[in-house]
Amino acid sequence: MLIKSENRFHYHDLLKFAHNAFIAIGCNNQDAVNASKVLISADIRGVDSHGVARLSGYVRLWKKNRINSSPKIKTIHETLSTATIDADGALGLVSGPHAMQIAINKASQVGTGWVAVKGSNHFGIAGYHAMMALEHNMIGIAMTNASPLVAPTYSTSRMLGTNPMAFAIPAKQQPAFVADFATTTAANGKLEILQRTGKLAPDGWIQNADGSSTNDPFSLKEGAALLPLGSDRNHGSHKGYCLAAVVDIFSAVLSGANYGPWVPPFVAFLDPPSDPVGDGIGHFFGAMRIDAFRPADDFLYHMDNWISAFRNATAIDENHAVQIPGDQERLAEIERNQHGIPINENVIADLKELAASLKIEFPEKIK
Amino acid sequence: MLIKSENRFHYHDLLKFAHNAFIAIGCNNQDAVNASKVLISADIRGVDSHGVARLSGYVRLWKKNRINSSPKIKTIHETLSTATIDADGALGLVSGPHAMQIAINKASQVGTGWVAVKGSNHFGIAGYHAMMALEHNMIGIAMTNASPLVAPTYSTSRMLGTNPMAFAIPAKQQPAFVADFATTTAANGKLEILQRTGKLAPDGWIQNADGSSTNDPFSLKEGAALLPLGSDRNHGSHKGYCLAAVVDIFSAVLSGANYGPWVPPFVAFLDPPSDPVGDGIGHFFGAMRIDAFRPADDFLYHMDNWISAFRNATAIDENHAVQIPGDQERLAEIERNQHGIPINENVIADLKELAASLKIEFPEKIK
Repeated sequence: MLIKSENRFHYHDLLKFAHNAFIAIGCNNQDAVNASKVLISADIRGVDSHGVARLSGYVRLWKKNRINSSPKIKTIHETLSTATIDADGALGLVSGPHAMQIAINKASQVGTGWVAVKGSNHFGIAGYHAMMALEHNMIGIAMTNASPLVAPTYSTSRMLGTNPMAFAIPAKQQPAFVADFATTTAANGKLEILQRTGKLAPDGWIQNADGSSTNDPFSLKEGAALLPLGSDRNHGSHKGYCLAAVVDIFSAVLSGANYGPWVPPFVAFLDPPSDPVGDGIGHFFGAMRIDAFRPADDFLYHMDNWISAFRNATAIDENHAVQIPGDQERLAEIERNQHGIPINENVIADLKELAASLKIEFPEKIK
Repeated sequence: MLIKSENRFHYHDLLKFAHNAFIAIGCNNQDAVNASKVLISADIRGVDSHGVARLSGYVRLWKKNRINSSPKIKTIHETLSTATIDADGALGLVSGPHAMQIAINKASQVGTGWVAVKGSNHFGIAGYHAMMALEHNMIGIAMTNASPLVAPTYSTSRMLGTNPMAFAIPAKQQPAFVADFATTTAANGKLEILQRTGKLAPDGWIQNADGSSTNDPFSLKEGAALLPLGSDRNHGSHKGYCLAAVVDIFSAVLSGANYGPWVPPFVAFLDPPSDPVGDGIGHFFGAMRIDAFRPADDFLYHMDNWISAFRNATAIDENHAVQIPGDQERLAEIERNQHGIPINENVIADLKELAASLKIEFPEKIK
C-alpha cells in the first residue's frame, strides 16, 4: 500500500501539530483537543479535503477576525428535547462537538435531542459529529450549511452550499452504518482532485454561469455552479435541491444563522455579504436513543442482519462487492493507522509555512 | 385547462366514494374519514399514482387478510419525545395520521416528537402526514419503507423500496415549503406513465436484472430494478442508496417492521416473504415545534425571506421560474378544486367494478 514517493505522517504527529496550531491562535487546551481531533479524523478516514489541508484556511479566517478562538458558546433557547446554541464565532470544530454533546444529553433524558447552532464556522466532516452518538447506543445526525456554490433546479444562481448530511447508526457485531455525503452530485473536494490531476469533470456535475453544461473543473471560478444530487430535472435534481434546502433551513433558519446566498464564504480572500440575515453559518445535530423505540438488543440484532443482507446482496461485478455506508472510510482508517496518512506535497509546503508563522514544529514524515 | 375528452370528478364526490368503500370493508367511521382524506389528498394535489387509483389494490389486500380494517393500534414503547406504534395490520392511511398526531402531541410537550410504526401498510402520500404539523407551527417529517424494487449501488438485487421522505416547513405570508420525494431517480409512478403512453425511460432510471442499463419501462416485470437517486456511482447513486437505507432503518429497524428485501409487496397477487423479520411495513414520523428553537415570528419571517430569495433566483429559461418544493402540488390543488380531478378511463372502469362488488355508488363525472 505504501508508495515510495508518498509522504506519510503518523496520526498522532498530525494531531499534535493541529493541536499546537490551535493553541497558537489562542484556543484553550480543551478546545484545541476537540478541534484537532475533529480535523484529523478527516485525514485518518481518507477524507483528505476536510482535514489538515484546511488548517491554514482556518488560521487565515482567524487572522481576519472571522473565527473567534476564545468564544463564549451559549445555549440561547431550549426545551426538554431541543436547544439552540450561539457559537459566538467559534470554530465549527469546537461548537460541533459541544452541540452534539448537548443533543446526546437531551436524548439520555427524554429519548431524543436536537440542537441548532448559529454563529459558527466550518465544522470538518459531518460524520465525526454524528458518530459521537454511537458509543451511547444512539443514532447520530449532523448537517451544516456552507457557502453558496450550488444552483437550484432551473436556476443559474448559486443559492446553496454543498450542505452535507451524516447519519451514524449503531450495530452489534457489524461495524456501524455511517453515511456522510454532500447533497450535490459531486462534492467540491472531487473537483479539487480533477483540478490537481488536470482531468475533466463528467457531465452532470457542473453548469456554466448561463446554465449550460460544462466539464471544466475550474469553471466555478467563473461563476459556474455545482449541481444538486440528481444533476438535472429528468434525473431528480429537484430532489437534491430539496435535500440541500432542508439542510439549509434546519441549520440556519431554525438557529438564526445566515442561509442560502447569505452564507459567508469559507475563504478569507472573499468578504462575507454586507447584508447578513443571521450570525455566521449554521449546523443542526440530532441524537436518538435506540432504546427509546425498542429494546436495544432487538435493534442491534436486526441492524446486524440488515447490514449482512446488504453486504451479501448480489454484486454486478464480482470484484466489486456491495458496500455499506462507512465501509470505505473505515478501511481507510485501518490502512492509515498502519501505514500513516499520506499528505500531498503542496499541502506539506503550505503547512510548513504555517508552522513557521505560528512558531510551532511541523512533524517529520514516516521514513 | 379543462380538456373535453377528460373525465373529471368533484373532490367531495371522490372523498365520499372512498369513504363508502372503507366503510364497506369494515372500517369504523373515524378511520374511514381519515383514510379517505389521506387517499384523495393525493388526487387533489396531482399525485395521481397514490390516490383513488390505488383503492381497489387496498381492497384486494384486505380480501387476502393482509389489511386489517378494524385494527387495535397500540403504543408499545415510549419516552417523552418518542413512541413506537404497533399498527396491527391497519391501513397506513389510518395508522399514519394516528402516529403523526402522537408526534405532534409529544412536540407540544417537550419540543419534538418522533414516532416509529410497525405492522402497517402503504400510507398514501408522505407529504399529507408531514403537512399535519403545519397548522401547529411545527416542522413535519414523514417517511416509509416499501416493497423492494431498488438495487443498491454495485448490486443487481432489489433490496430497497422507493422509500419516500417528506418535509413540511411552515412560513407566514408565503405558502409552506413541502418536499415529498422518492429516494430513487424516478418514482415508480413515472414508469407507469411511460408504460401507459408507450414511451421509453431515460438512461439512468432502470437497470436490467444483470445490472446493465435499460430504457424499457416494462423491464421491472423481468427482474429489472429502479436506480437510487444519482443513477450511477459517478453521479452519486451511493447517496441515493444511503437515503433509501436511512428511510428503511428509521421506518423498520427502529419499529420492528420488515426491512430491505423482506418488505411485503403492495400487490395482492404477490405473496409476502415466508421468512419475515418483523411485522408489516414501517413508517417514521417527526414533528418539531419551531418555537422550540427560536421565537416563531422570527422563524416565519426568515422562512418567508428564504422562500422569496429562492423564488426570485435567476432562471435559466425565463419561461420556467425556479420552484419552491410544494409549488407544483399546490398549483394542482388550486386547479383541481376549480375544475375537478381528472381520472384515467382505465381507472374509472376499475373503480366502477369495485363499486359494484362493494355495493356502493360510483360518482357522476363533471358535465
